Amino acid sequence: MSSIGVVTPASMHFDSPLSLQSGAVLCDYTLVYETYGHLNPDRSNAVLVCHALNASHHVAGLHADEQGQPLPKSQGWWDNLIGPGKPLDTNKFFVIGINNPGSCFGSTGPMHTNPDTGRLYGADFPVVTVEDWVDAQARLLDRLGIGQLAAVVGGSLGGMQAMSWALQYPQRLRHCVVIASAPNLSAQNIAFNEVARRAIVTDPDFHGGHYYAHGVVPRRGLRVARMIGHITYLSDDVMAEKFGRQLVGRERGEAPHYSTQDVEFQVESYLRYQGDKFSDYFDANTYLLITRALDYFDPARTFDGNLSAALAKAVAKFLIISFTTDWRFSPERSREIVKALVDHRHDVSYAEIDAPHGHDAFLLDDPRYHALLRAYFERIDQELSEDHEPRHE
Amino acid sequence: MSSIGVVTPASMHFDSPLSLQSGAVLCDYTLVYETYGHLNPDRSNAVLVCHALNASHHVAGLHADEQGQPLPKSQGWWDNLIGPGKPLDTNKFFVIGINNPGSCFGSTGPMHTNPDTGRLYGADFPVVTVEDWVDAQARLLDRLGIGQLAAVVGGSLGGMQAMSWALQYPQRLRHCVVIASAPNLSAQNIAFNEVARRAIVTDPDFHGGHYYAHGVVPRRGLRVARMIGHITYLSDDVMAEKFGRQLVGRERGEAPHYSTQDVEFQVESYLRYQGDKFSDYFDANTYLLITRALDYFDPARTFDGNLSAALAKAVAKFLIISFTTDWRFSPERSREIVKALVDHRHDVSYAEIDAPHGHDAFLLDDPRYHALLRAYFERIDQELSEDHEPRHE
Repeated sequence: MSSIGVVTPASMHFDSPLSLQSGAVLCDYTLVYETYGHLNPDRSNAVLVCHALNASHHVAGLHADEQGQPLPKSQGWWDNLIGPGKPLDTNKFFVIGINNPGSCFGSTGPMHTNPDTGRLYGADFPVVTVEDWVDAQARLLDRLGIGQLAAVVGGSLGGMQAMSWALQYPQRLRHCVVIASAPNLSAQNIAFNEVARRAIVTDPDFHGGHYYAHGVVPRRGLRVARMIGHITYLSDDVMAEKFGRQLVGRERGEAPHYSTQDVEFQVESYLRYQGDKFSDYFDANTYLLITRALDYFDPARTFDGNLSAALAKAVAKFLIISFTTDWRFSPERSREIVKALVDHRHDVSYAEIDAPHGHDAFLLDDPRYHALLRAYFERIDQELSEDHEPRHE
Repeated sequence: MSSIGVVTPASMHFDSPLSLQSGAVLCDYTLVYETYGHLNPDRSNAVLVCHALNASHHVAGLHADEQGQPLPKSQGWWDNLIGPGKPLDTNKFFVIGINNPGSCFGSTGPMHTNPDTGRLYGADFPVVTVEDWVDAQARLLDRLGIGQLAAVVGGSLGGMQAMSWALQYPQRLRHCVVIASAPNLSAQNIAFNEVARRAIVTDPDFHGGHYYAHGVVPRRGLRVARMIGHITYLSDDVMAEKFGRQLVGRERGEAPHYSTQDVEFQVESYLRYQGDKFSDYFDANTYLLITRALDYFDPARTFDGNLSAALAKAVAKFLIISFTTDWRFSPERSREIVKALVDHRHDVSYAEIDAPHGHDAFLLDDPRYHALLRAYFERIDQELSEDHEPRHE
């Protein structure tokens, strides 16, 4: 296993309008993407990796400075999974990461200029949905000349995109890998998103979403949003193990400082740090857009809530993975997807990984989880080779 | 069963200083309290009810307007439990509710004048702990001439006070009833409190806790704090049942409005309403103080984390109650208390009530829950009568 090394993002401009689910139209946009490995001659080994809330097209490898030197800590967000000899092996597969429109990491989003007004989009950026993102991704693949993907893979919100691929473009993917995801958000999930959004929108520096013009950022709101998010990404147990009730600057058993505003417990220090860091780089309008895309995703909505009916049109083979301690998208939610697929005798594999890390587990290199993905991608590779062998009938 | 009817809060002034756990001293303070029922001649039938984060001394009965007419919706927070013929029967018991110092409901708190400066306390109100509250409550009982309580009862943070009574004044209570509580907060519990506090403290209207002088209230922060709180009070299931994914002003299956800032889902509307309402009446400094009292409570801290050792000095009989769907203070946390008591062969009864409502269940009138409390208080009443009967030896 070795790293991919330095990678350089590419970008692709689209000037044919993208009709969005809301009825709005994105007339002109750019998508940023990265690829790893090589597309085989019959263009059958492409794997699309869809990103979640806080991520981007930079899935694997390192970014470099202007002198071409790798930047420290610049690994892609799934670098532990993707690379030569890694479970999603770039010696075998051509892996593509695409940044979704509405993001703040390069593809057209709220921080770009609205061609209609000549000003930054800000809060005027149209609402985008999982389905819109999948449409945008499909167009990029058209331009890359990729008709059918070997697989679409995603965790969390990325898993929703993978699922949506199987419904919007059933023939364009062989395998659909949905990790730590759900068929829709629960009321509790929506509630957490809503609190985060209220924290952002009611920050006086939000200025109705046009804060760029004021030279400020709704940093307070972003911090609170990120802190809430972090709590839902970690399991209760892993928080207890990492931080427990340990006080900052105190020995075990020592009394606290007795302060309502200063940091007392280590978990507070951790959350404040995460919030600060996030507010330095993440765009508030993007946060609103992406959490809304999460809220809105619900393939069963137009099937009177019947997920089996909604998934009937899928033809891909599915791998569904959940983690026992994930309370954001619990195994129960993954089992709903599995049940709906089984109802139609779809080819579906399901694994519930006993991992302590909560929702975040999908980003970590738990050995059982990675071994499972390795085996699954080896099976896909095998299938692709068998398609190439001369058939003896 | 009938209601207590109109009740009038009493207040008691204390001019002997109360030494607090932090080392600070509250020189001069007033406690507001209510009582229901009658103290029997040998003063043995008093039951103290301790309040949680968002409550007060107004435990049962109604408040009246200036003409003595009952105010609508002015029932005390545990009115369903306490009254003539109710599970905690005021025909038998003399029930006392005391508002804790630091509160915003009448007892001396941040909204009162600091005698040292002549200005409102605001953020200068000293940090108060569960132990400090119990000390203050004990002094009020001294003045009422109550040596031993028949029981101390509390839910959530109130349960922590009941537990602390059994440790600080072991001989002063016969029974300790701890409902939907925990022996301390977990890292996740602290994390939720911390996010709520950060939302309040970083609201520009907080002014370092001296917002009264500016004629403003950190309403945005309070709203977010309350919304977070509400999510943790309800179970995922009850949220799903109450709100599901239902959109506001849309039929089932209809498309949403596609907006990042407007209310879309009913759960959002509910949370915003709760946040608005709360920010109208709750004091931000009190919110910080009470969440910190929650964070700090940890009787095992000075026993190297050994809860059994910490509870060794208790002599009261215990009733511990938890609710299956309470994820704020899960049954597992109550079982820790039970185990620690059993380690010392304490008299402890434990009930895990199968209720769908999450942490809020302790405030609701679930029939199994109330039947259990009724039976337990009948047993206490029986004990008290037996103490009065002539003994035949």
